[in-house]
Amino acid sequence: MTSRFQFTIEATDGKARTGRIDMLRGDIRTPAFMPVGTAATVKAMKPESVRETGADIILGNTYHLMLRPGAERVARLGGLHQFMNWQRPILTDSGGYQVMSLSELRKLTEEGVEFRSHIDGSKHMLTPERSMEIQRLLGSDIVMAFDECPRADQPRDVIAQSMELSMRWARRSRDGFDAGGQHAERAALFGIQQGALDEELRRISAEKLIEIGFDGYAVGGLAVGEGQEAMFATLDFAPDMLPQDRPRYLMGVGKPDDLVGAVERGIDMFDCVLPTRSGRNGQAFTRSGPLNLRNARHAEDTGPLDERCICPTCATYSRAYLHHLQKSGEILGAMLVTEHNLSFYQQLMQAMRDAIGSGTFSQFAATFRRDYLGSQD
Amino acid sequence: MTSRFQFTIEATDGKARTGRIDMLRGDIRTPAFMPVGTAATVKAMKPESVRETGADIILGNTYHLMLRPGAERVARLGGLHQFMNWQRPILTDSGGYQVMSLSELRKLTEEGVEFRSHIDGSKHMLTPERSMEIQRLLGSDIVMAFDECPRADQPRDVIAQSMELSMRWARRSRDGFDAGGQHAERAALFGIQQGALDEELRRISAEKLIEIGFDGYAVGGLAVGEGQEAMFATLDFAPDMLPQDRPRYLMGVGKPDDLVGAVERGIDMFDCVLPTRSGRNGQAFTRSGPLNLRNARHAEDTGPLDERCICPTCATYSRAYLHHLQKSGEILGAMLVTEHNLSFYQQLMQAMRDAIGSGTFSQFAATFRRDYLGSQD
Repeated sequence: MTSRFQFTIEATDGKARTGRIDMLRGDIRTPAFMPVGTAATVKAMKPESVRETGADIILGNTYHLMLRPGAERVARLGGLHQFMNWQRPILTDSGGYQVMSLSELRKLTEEGVEFRSHIDGSKHMLTPERSMEIQRLLGSDIVMAFDECPRADQPRDVIAQSMELSMRWARRSRDGFDAGGQHAERAALFGIQQGALDEELRRISAEKLIEIGFDGYAVGGLAVGEGQEAMFATLDFAPDMLPQDRPRYLMGVGKPDDLVGAVERGIDMFDCVLPTRSGRNGQAFTRSGPLNLRNARHAEDTGPLDERCICPTCATYSRAYLHHLQKSGEILGAMLVTEHNLSFYQQLMQAMRDAIGSGTFSQFAATFRRDYLGSQD
Repeated sequence: MTSRFQFTIEATDGKARTGRIDMLRGDIRTPAFMPVGTAATVKAMKPESVRETGADIILGNTYHLMLRPGAERVARLGGLHQFMNWQRPILTDSGGYQVMSLSELRKLTEEGVEFRSHIDGSKHMLTPERSMEIQRLLGSDIVMAFDECPRADQPRDVIAQSMELSMRWARRSRDGFDAGGQHAERAALFGIQQGALDEELRRISAEKLIEIGFDGYAVGGLAVGEGQEAMFATLDFAPDMLPQDRPRYLMGVGKPDDLVGAVERGIDMFDCVLPTRSGRNGQAFTRSGPLNLRNARHAEDTGPLDERCICPTCATYSRAYLHHLQKSGEILGAMLVTEHNLSFYQQLMQAMRDAIGSGTFSQFAATFRRDYLGSQD
């Protein structure tokens, strides 16, 4: 607990790696899944329950927090950890992705992005420097460089220009972060590789990032609609371009089978809204695939969501009850299924860490795929 | 834990009483506040958290449960306690009040009430016999007689006729309950006094109920818009007409100051949606009155909702954070404020029990009113 940022790989199995990141606010076991706490809350969960699912770190969204309650306000209230009662590490994104997907009337320039808030229409500007400042005000433990994340289906020259812009912004992010005084001595900064599905652009991006130098490296620009096959094809080469001795973070991914395939290709960290969003919509993840609790066949099913799950929901509640809560629109339904889903994801990460540690990852992955993809609701 | 239903008054102070009800599923300390678990869930709360607020018993709604998931279905799934994971006593209402306030196209006859579901328009019939059957299928511990609850502002002859109908239904409820076999040997049945604000009608109603004989007696037909002054004026005489040695339950009440005034007048039990509904709407109860978390003055307030509150929300979260959650429409906001409100209500009940036990209820009530009614948001 005395290290700012120390990544230790404890075992490998093929390209898959397991280990831990030591940080001042606690260790992060890898491969790690980070629940998303968009607006200073992992939706429908108390933070102590998030921790009990096995999460070592959560993610906060710069775009949402800068608009409400505002980064300066969070800083005045003692920072994000104090504000939301989560004392372990927090990774914050840069706002780059969400300002393009959520805000209104965007104007992109070399300087940054000018936009209007989706909440109240107010005008804001995000630049690499301002993104670093916001993440510092929030008290982030892992800060993400400010980048542009284009759709992957655009012409190569558009992708290339966007990647080059993101690399110039990565340099400005590094400088902005390093100017952050005491915060820079306690936090880590990750760069983000871009280049969509193009191997050459991914290589250029990786080289530029490595030249700047970061504590960890994200594979950005995936999970934006390209499909699992194209994502895996890109992950067959993109992570290998990043330093072996640094954590690799696949942003915004994904479904359980995405996670297994990405770990297989050398990814160490993930975040995704899927377990929490699905939990609110009545979709539960199980070892035999996702199930939709609204389906009438669950109405008198006294069994748990997943026979092998160790979460409090599965220990206590029947599918019949969860079906009823979902049909009735009850908040408790969102609470219980979110808790199950987050626990299911953490159990999956633990199983992958164990399999890598014992050199049985390929068998684990094969069994997982047989059970998980064999039957869907 | 071997008694079907045993009410013991341990102390009195003026008309106020404190004691306990022993039942097979656990004791109920009185005066008692019952959180409302309408659709087999106390909204936005896990049952273990409801218990941790200090609740000894919760209420379930016959009208909602008969429509969804259905009483027969709950019975097949092992009863309401098993279904929702609440192993302590449950009181169920009769459906009489809500069928008149929530359903569509009602037709009231001597036999009962025919109506259409507010959920899907399906046609149903509630009678005293069917209400007893539903409450038996749910596995209720305290069953309420089926009654009609008219608005208090109607002509005296309307109130009188309604009360007489309710008394005939009380007789049929008693017979229906007693025919319930094993359930009747484990559960208790309460009658409901009607007569609105009229002393003579209240007396007639009480006499008829006592002649039938019940384990406890509710004061019905109040908290239907008549105002606190008229309610207290009625409570100045109505509870005294009911047996001293039986619990008296004021249905659907109420605000914290309503509870204090009603205990002062001899009431032992309460239920109300106010702490849960308010919790979802961002209204928090405190010893210095209710406060609205949407108010901008809380935006940077690092203090708890109530300095003297012992609940987990007040131990951990600032008004500023709860304000943020409320403004953002976050489920966690509903969870944390509901938990606080239910805990606040139970702390109030405990304070009243203690004050009655030590013969200081009038001082307690005066101090409470000074603090609570002195400042409102």
